[in-house]
Amino acid sequence: MSKTALAIDLGGTNVRAALVDSQGHILVKKTLPTQAGDGAQQILRRIIEVSQSVLAEAETPLVIGMGSPGCVDSDRGIVLFATDNLPGWRGTDLKGVLEKELSLRAYIDNDVNMMAYGESRIGAGTGVSALVCLTLGTGVGGAVILNGKIYRGQQYYAGELGHISINREGPFCNCGGRGCLEAYIGTAALIKQAEDFRKDKIDSGIFHYAEKNEGKITPEIIFKAAQDKDPSAQAILKEMGHCLGFTLAMVVNVLSPERIVIGGGISRAWDYFYPSLMESLRRQSLFGPERNVEVVMAELGPDAGLAGSGLYALEQAGY
Amino acid sequence: MSKTALAIDLGGTNVRAALVDSQGHILVKKTLPTQAGDGAQQILRRIIEVSQSVLAEAETPLVIGMGSPGCVDSDRGIVLFATDNLPGWRGTDLKGVLEKELSLRAYIDNDVNMMAYGESRIGAGTGVSALVCLTLGTGVGGAVILNGKIYRGQQYYAGELGHISINREGPFCNCGGRGCLEAYIGTAALIKQAEDFRKDKIDSGIFHYAEKNEGKITPEIIFKAAQDKDPSAQAILKEMGHCLGFTLAMVVNVLSPERIVIGGGISRAWDYFYPSLMESLRRQSLFGPERNVEVVMAELGPDAGLAGSGLYALEQAGY
Repeated sequence: MSKTALAIDLGGTNVRAALVDSQGHILVKKTLPTQAGDGAQQILRRIIEVSQSVLAEAETPLVIGMGSPGCVDSDRGIVLFATDNLPGWRGTDLKGVLEKELSLRAYIDNDVNMMAYGESRIGAGTGVSALVCLTLGTGVGGAVILNGKIYRGQQYYAGELGHISINREGPFCNCGGRGCLEAYIGTAALIKQAEDFRKDKIDSGIFHYAEKNEGKITPEIIFKAAQDKDPSAQAILKEMGHCLGFTLAMVVNVLSPERIVIGGGISRAWDYFYPSLMESLRRQSLFGPERNVEVVMAELGPDAGLAGSGLYALEQAGY
Repeated sequence: MSKTALAIDLGGTNVRAALVDSQGHILVKKTLPTQAGDGAQQILRRIIEVSQSVLAEAETPLVIGMGSPGCVDSDRGIVLFATDNLPGWRGTDLKGVLEKELSLRAYIDNDVNMMAYGESRIGAGTGVSALVCLTLGTGVGGAVILNGKIYRGQQYYAGELGHISINREGPFCNCGGRGCLEAYIGTAALIKQAEDFRKDKIDSGIFHYAEKNEGKITPEIIFKAAQDKDPSAQAILKEMGHCLGFTLAMVVNVLSPERIVIGGGISRAWDYFYPSLMESLRRQSLFGPERNVEVVMAELGPDAGLAGSGLYALEQAGY
């Protein structure tokens, strides 16, 4: 009988639970939607509900692993900080609730840490001693894995790569800082760039796709338009690459990782941002042209967090 | 009989050697000047010469520890890169030369790493698991110490904090990048800011001190003028603090160290740059006001590198 973990991944629009084996395979997976503005109690009920629906179909796992947005005290399993997307989430004793409700030992960490752990064990991040991961989405998340271990730093705050600034006179970021990467390449920033083309009356395939989507532009639509050779869409992704490369140069100057793994929805637009990313990375990092840092796409897709949570919990518990 | 190491520190204008005991005390110290433009062979001769003058006065040490500018392969003891200040230094097999000429086992690392190691063992950086050090001078150097060990990253490139950029549209740096911290607060940048006051015909105590120094402005003179309450000098140091704080916020967002130690000549102007440093650090780092990262002045002064080299060598050799 295979050793398995119940893995839970709390995202922006849903909560997923899965049975994960010690190779990181997803054996059973269930999803429940969450609603914007759900309070902590509602979300916790959803988490228990989706977990029980996995447990109903599966042999009993040995442990629970869970990734949550926000800053997580991974020793106590408590959410230290969360954004306004999750009102009341701050202070939630996830470990306590899960262990009480599901009667299994639980290991909790930040969702990006869990995704990165998955990539480091069975995905694009295997075999290196210093790994950095970046996830592109509504926000820009980051994680650092050193010698196979999640590097958390003081108060579990490390790895906030989306809040590296590329311009101290740049746009204000939600975090209160200025010129953060997230303020340039987060979903809202990408959409704003497309909207600016509309304001300037520049015709773009982006708007044709948006029409079919109730007028709404999404990163997915920008990617699609780029694939149709739309110059505006390609320009947005090229500039995204420059911003990413410039930011990663700073990470390289500080940490000199062997590999950087990039995941998240828009990372599928790889071919459109990778060349400018590498150009800016080489130009801005010290001895850039002589370094051989690898920048690669994540391999595990949206299940990276589930795989990572399951593997992390099994390994922490000593299985 | 105390266990001792021969410690060597190669600087921009001189090479120093000392006998260091296992508590990091400097027992004997000698200095020889180097000349700008000296080739590798001349510098190596100076290093051997100053080392022999220490050995002539001291009991025989057990090992050699040396800090060198540039990027150093600390496993093989070879200089991988060096700036134009040290022509021909790149590729120098320091370990090989020292072991052959002085018949003692030698451990070599980057000079800032050795300084940081000294501070981490017996200076301002003791007792924390994640430590970042910064040295302010002609260039801005950095080092990262994790769990008591020098963190070097891939190809020994980590810790280049002077080349974190605070503005992708900022001034070009010697490294080829743009907006690097060093381009804002390195010695040349500080002097240029003072010169700009002169161009704008702003009277400043800086120029009175400079007159007594053949017209040359130095960071030391800016510090002196600030102590005399000169507003121009104080403005330069305040802005230096903002640049430092903004840069350190990025380091904090990536690594979340418990403590940051700042050394180097101009760090003595602490009172004039620390308040603005902390203001920018708190504003730009995620959850900044709630973090308790400590930013403190280095304690060991110019001997930090010697103490660090000696301690490092003794510990590496297992004494």
